[in-house]
Amino acid sequence: MKKSIGAKTILFPTPVLIVCTYDAKGTPNAMNVAWGGIACSEPPCVAVSIRDQRKTYENILAHKAFTVNIPSERYIKEADYFGIVSGKTEDKFKATGLTPVKSDLVNAPYIKEFPLAIECTLKEIYKLGTHTQFIGEINDIKVEESALNAKGFPDAGKMKAFMFDPGTSAYYATGKFLGQAFTVGKKR
Amino acid sequence: MKKSIGAKTILFPTPVLIVCTYDAKGTPNAMNVAWGGIACSEPPCVAVSIRDQRKTYENILAHKAFTVNIPSERYIKEADYFGIVSGKTEDKFKATGLTPVKSDLVNAPYIKEFPLAIECTLKEIYKLGTHTQFIGEINDIKVEESALNAKGFPDAGKMKAFMFDPGTSAYYATGKFLGQAFTVGKKR
Repeated sequence: MKKSIGAKTILFPTPVLIVCTYDAKGTPNAMNVAWGGIACSEPPCVAVSIRDQRKTYENILAHKAFTVNIPSERYIKEADYFGIVSGKTEDKFKATGLTPVKSDLVNAPYIKEFPLAIECTLKEIYKLGTHTQFIGEINDIKVEESALNAKGFPDAGKMKAFMFDPGTSAYYATGKFLGQAFTVGKKR
Repeated sequence: MKKSIGAKTILFPTPVLIVCTYDAKGTPNAMNVAWGGIACSEPPCVAVSIRDQRKTYENILAHKAFTVNIPSERYIKEADYFGIVSGKTEDKFKATGLTPVKSDLVNAPYIKEFPLAIECTLKEIYKLGTHTQFIGEINDIKVEESALNAKGFPDAGKMKAFMFDPGTSAYYATGKFLGQAFTVGKKR
């Protein structure tokens, strides 16, 4: 039996996306974004939704570029911290000790210690309400070699990525492998 | 050491969103969408990206409404099947035996057997390339009572939702609880 819980922003899983940018002076910043995901296959695009009070908002407008970084479990404290504190009042890279690396393709930094970085140039800006969607065209993805499988693709199990549950504000680990997509559905 | 893998659509986790619609004759359809997520807090919005050849694409345009359903692990075969076969050639509800329930708020069906359904009216249409983003304003969320926690919120652990890894086309289960957001980052 289903119960109505009202018009809430609940969906699972939502990703833990650490969006990195430079400000006008070149200071790197990092922010934790749960409202986002892949938005188009060709051109390859990723969407991140950000409130206009955020430092990241003005940084993306200043440089028309950002990176989306996926943290592994061991960096859960740093990832959560990036969502608690504002880059307007604190240098979050200094505070965490994580290393910003200048992307060779776009005018934004990525996080050296995290397993996966998506380098984006700003393609579209859609104001929806409290949040504005920034659509980034993916220029390249850089992955730690230890997170790649034998075919050279990033493997979620090896990455040890984690996810966010907005219903309970909880982080969950990647669980067990359940099956191959476009395959298990043929066996009904 | 990071390795460049090119401009691919890889991010983890991506959700397994079953988007349900009616066609012009009122036949219900269901489609598996990985490119999507929450897009705005107020008004509460969800984004799903869909190719224009899909049955779901024309159905959303016909009725300006859709639902987003989260399957539990036990329905992985049905969820995967919804991503393999087209509603243009097969009645996917009949084939799976799942039950379409007419939403009382929007002109779209939701899936009775799945733990969570998000009822949406179409708010915006953004053509990005191969995919068009449909932004749905969330009118209500309906949840199986067994998936609610003591505070009345959907609990990812109880839902037994699963996720998609586009890097390896694999489905993964929800793993163990790792910590509370907006809390673990204070303890660095």
